[in-house]
Amino acid sequence: MVAPFRPPSRGEAASRLTDSLLAPGSHLPGTAAVHDWLAGLSRHTWMETQRAGLDELAGWVREPDTGFLRHHTGRFFSVEAVTVERADAVVPSWRQPIINQPEIGILGILVKEIDGVLHCLIQAKQEPGNPGGGLQLSPTVQATRSNYTGVHRGRAIPYLEYFREPAGRGVLVDIRQSEQGAWFYRKRNRNMVVEVGDDVEAVDGFCWLTLRQLAELLSVPDLVNMDTRTVLACLPGGGAYWSEAVASRPGDDFLAALARSADPAAPSVHTTDEVLSWITEARTRTELRVERTPLRELAGWCTEDGVISHRSGRFFSVVGVHVKAEGREVGAWSQPMIEPVGTGVIAFLVRTIDGVLHVLTHARTEPGYADVVELAPTVQCTPENYDVLPDAARPRFLDEVLRSERIRFDTVLSEEGGRFLGAQNRYVIVETDADVAADDPDYRWLTLSQYDELLRHSFYVNIQARSLLLCLRSLAVT
Amino acid sequence: MVAPFRPPSRGEAASRLTDSLLAPGSHLPGTAAVHDWLAGLSRHTWMETQRAGLDELAGWVREPDTGFLRHHTGRFFSVEAVTVERADAVVPSWRQPIINQPEIGILGILVKEIDGVLHCLIQAKQEPGNPGGGLQLSPTVQATRSNYTGVHRGRAIPYLEYFREPAGRGVLVDIRQSEQGAWFYRKRNRNMVVEVGDDVEAVDGFCWLTLRQLAELLSVPDLVNMDTRTVLACLPGGGAYWSEAVASRPGDDFLAALARSADPAAPSVHTTDEVLSWITEARTRTELRVERTPLRELAGWCTEDGVISHRSGRFFSVVGVHVKAEGREVGAWSQPMIEPVGTGVIAFLVRTIDGVLHVLTHARTEPGYADVVELAPTVQCTPENYDVLPDAARPRFLDEVLRSERIRFDTVLSEEGGRFLGAQNRYVIVETDADVAADDPDYRWLTLSQYDELLRHSFYVNIQARSLLLCLRSLAVT
Repeated sequence: MVAPFRPPSRGEAASRLTDSLLAPGSHLPGTAAVHDWLAGLSRHTWMETQRAGLDELAGWVREPDTGFLRHHTGRFFSVEAVTVERADAVVPSWRQPIINQPEIGILGILVKEIDGVLHCLIQAKQEPGNPGGGLQLSPTVQATRSNYTGVHRGRAIPYLEYFREPAGRGVLVDIRQSEQGAWFYRKRNRNMVVEVGDDVEAVDGFCWLTLRQLAELLSVPDLVNMDTRTVLACLPGGGAYWSEAVASRPGDDFLAALARSADPAAPSVHTTDEVLSWITEARTRTELRVERTPLRELAGWCTEDGVISHRSGRFFSVVGVHVKAEGREVGAWSQPMIEPVGTGVIAFLVRTIDGVLHVLTHARTEPGYADVVELAPTVQCTPENYDVLPDAARPRFLDEVLRSERIRFDTVLSEEGGRFLGAQNRYVIVETDADVAADDPDYRWLTLSQYDELLRHSFYVNIQARSLLLCLRSLAVT
Repeated sequence: MVAPFRPPSRGEAASRLTDSLLAPGSHLPGTAAVHDWLAGLSRHTWMETQRAGLDELAGWVREPDTGFLRHHTGRFFSVEAVTVERADAVVPSWRQPIINQPEIGILGILVKEIDGVLHCLIQAKQEPGNPGGGLQLSPTVQATRSNYTGVHRGRAIPYLEYFREPAGRGVLVDIRQSEQGAWFYRKRNRNMVVEVGDDVEAVDGFCWLTLRQLAELLSVPDLVNMDTRTVLACLPGGGAYWSEAVASRPGDDFLAALARSADPAAPSVHTTDEVLSWITEARTRTELRVERTPLRELAGWCTEDGVISHRSGRFFSVVGVHVKAEGREVGAWSQPMIEPVGTGVIAFLVRTIDGVLHVLTHARTEPGYADVVELAPTVQCTPENYDVLPDAARPRFLDEVLRSERIRFDTVLSEEGGRFLGAQNRYVIVETDADVAADDPDYRWLTLSQYDELLRHSFYVNIQARSLLLCLRSLAVT
């Protein structure tokens, strides 16, 4: 039993995934067939989302002391509030509502070989918060622990068993990652990719897509959902084979630099040990204090018509919704959601240095992070929010992104529609000649290969950067 | 400024460290000279530790509501209490005192080349909790943030500046690691190794030692202190060069298997991705709830003569001490300490599988861990404690360790003498033919090379396993 065997190595997996990134797909070849399939499904899928006051949500109760809003079972999530203190920050202290969802859910994608090429099992799924109420391309399984332990007494979740008992299968990804630390208190989901055999078929509402198809579909607004993006971002997305395959495609200097960036043997501005030391320094230096505080009468926030909003009208609101749906595990429910104000900008500045594409990476603190600091996009903000904040709070590089004409990627994508109502961000990748000092405390230039290494571990790369990395890799084939 | 350069790679550092592991040392060659140096120092070093009641400690106050014992400045650390709940555990719930030390301190070792070989700058240091009150070989710098920001108004800490401003120097290690999760609530220290130039000299009480000398001194009871052990354990301790160098030494099959274990190209029972997935599963599955609770009238514990002890007389006590010392930053102080009952057993079972040494590793939960589970020795316990616990709580493999005649390492080493009074553990490495199922939820076989990779990141490997890994590597040259 203990005799060493060599299960598929990371390098082998990376090569097979590269082949998938280059393959048009066999199940619904190309992307037109995917759009047709979605159009067909949307004719007989139906979800109605109706706004409701926070105190009119069936199954949700207020805790008497704190005013925290929680499900009567004590499961799912609760809406709480925190006081945040950050010594040395431009805004050194504030209060805000925050979602507490301590359970670790599963975001899982099954993959299998079709005609020798890995395909991902993708679900067309509606969520109450999806902009326009549309279907989005979602992972095979999105399940909170309350879902999959049956707390909501719904129907069985298809394909869940492959993720709950993955031992003995090919596990390509299995890592807990954080989600939005500005809205969630220490939420973590288990990102998984599991390979299955030929016997697993796509049931109604599911289809098999290659990484190439998903890369192309990333440039369609609001189509590839956040959970799919984070799971795909955690797949090995580089290595020498990837690099050679991408370099051999017809393209410009940018493509060549992108290809080299994913090669671990290519030079980088900083060694990975230096990047890790920078993260250690940032996590040691940053003094972040997050304490729970009552949601009732939260300073700076007001409740009107059953909605909690910031007095400035900016940032976000906490709202309630009634949802009716067909084809879900549960047919009708009510829940609170976070509704952000305005569309965010999430941008990488990228630069070719010595022939290798580097990503300008920000060491960012958010109140909900489990470990103080994570690596974030160069710019991650909602520009309108800065109208009510001190000038010094305006994000570095935001103006460069907004004014740039060297745009490589620019698509509005939405965030998790199960918790966020109409949350959209403009995901942007722009080339730059900007530079930062080698010892800038807040920014470093990283290669794709360095990200590939960091993404094997929890809590280094934030959810926005994971999405954007996937977009950056997609430029290899689009 | 952004032109890529190639700073010393991890591979180069690993090779130079291997040379140090093979070198007898130039400053105090061999180990006899080190003992002479220590004997000389101990004649004019002096520390007096006197027991005192917890309520007689100058500068320490009780919080009125909770009975927590804290320093009047609010810095250093406090003695608090927690309720621990672990669904599915044999002991599903208990209460205990715990030390809360939220500040991230620095444990730093300077290295420099002498005659072309890396030497570590080691300090001979006394701590109130050191067994026998003796000098121990300590890192160049051991400093809490309260120390180095001057809260205790003591003398300047020698060599501190190299760790506070490491940018531009050769940083070989810079990673936060946990400490004892049974006694500390989420304590983390920043483990650092920084290379300096020829101009840095050893001041009185410091000496330069090679890794070879430190490896040999590890088998002297209570000599190499815990902080030195954890920092050295985080150094790159493997790679092809290490493996070849060790394999070429005269030795038995065990040495050959040890050498191969550190080679990343050698086969392993599990891939590193499988090990990471196992950790993800354990951290997802384990439901650990740790809540602060008042220290006053803590169920199961009693206070008598100013000492807090468990009613069974087992586990540990919280005691107070008055300390007078020469040659410290501060000449006299009082503080609480944790005094464990009995000597612990910390053991690796190791086995040669397909010619490669593997370490049987336990996924362990302790209440103070930042992330629920860390990798721990095969056995880590104080055997006497199990007299008062259910039979099912008796640690797996403990009896095999206690009865084994295939002992490769067996030395009593002590834990941090600044917080723990006379805390000693027997560190043991024994060969075994034992096996575990490939899908055992709690144990996996790991190679040295896999540990080397995990130790680049925070909170994977617990402090006891880090110490023991250092002992295991020391067997390459002793």
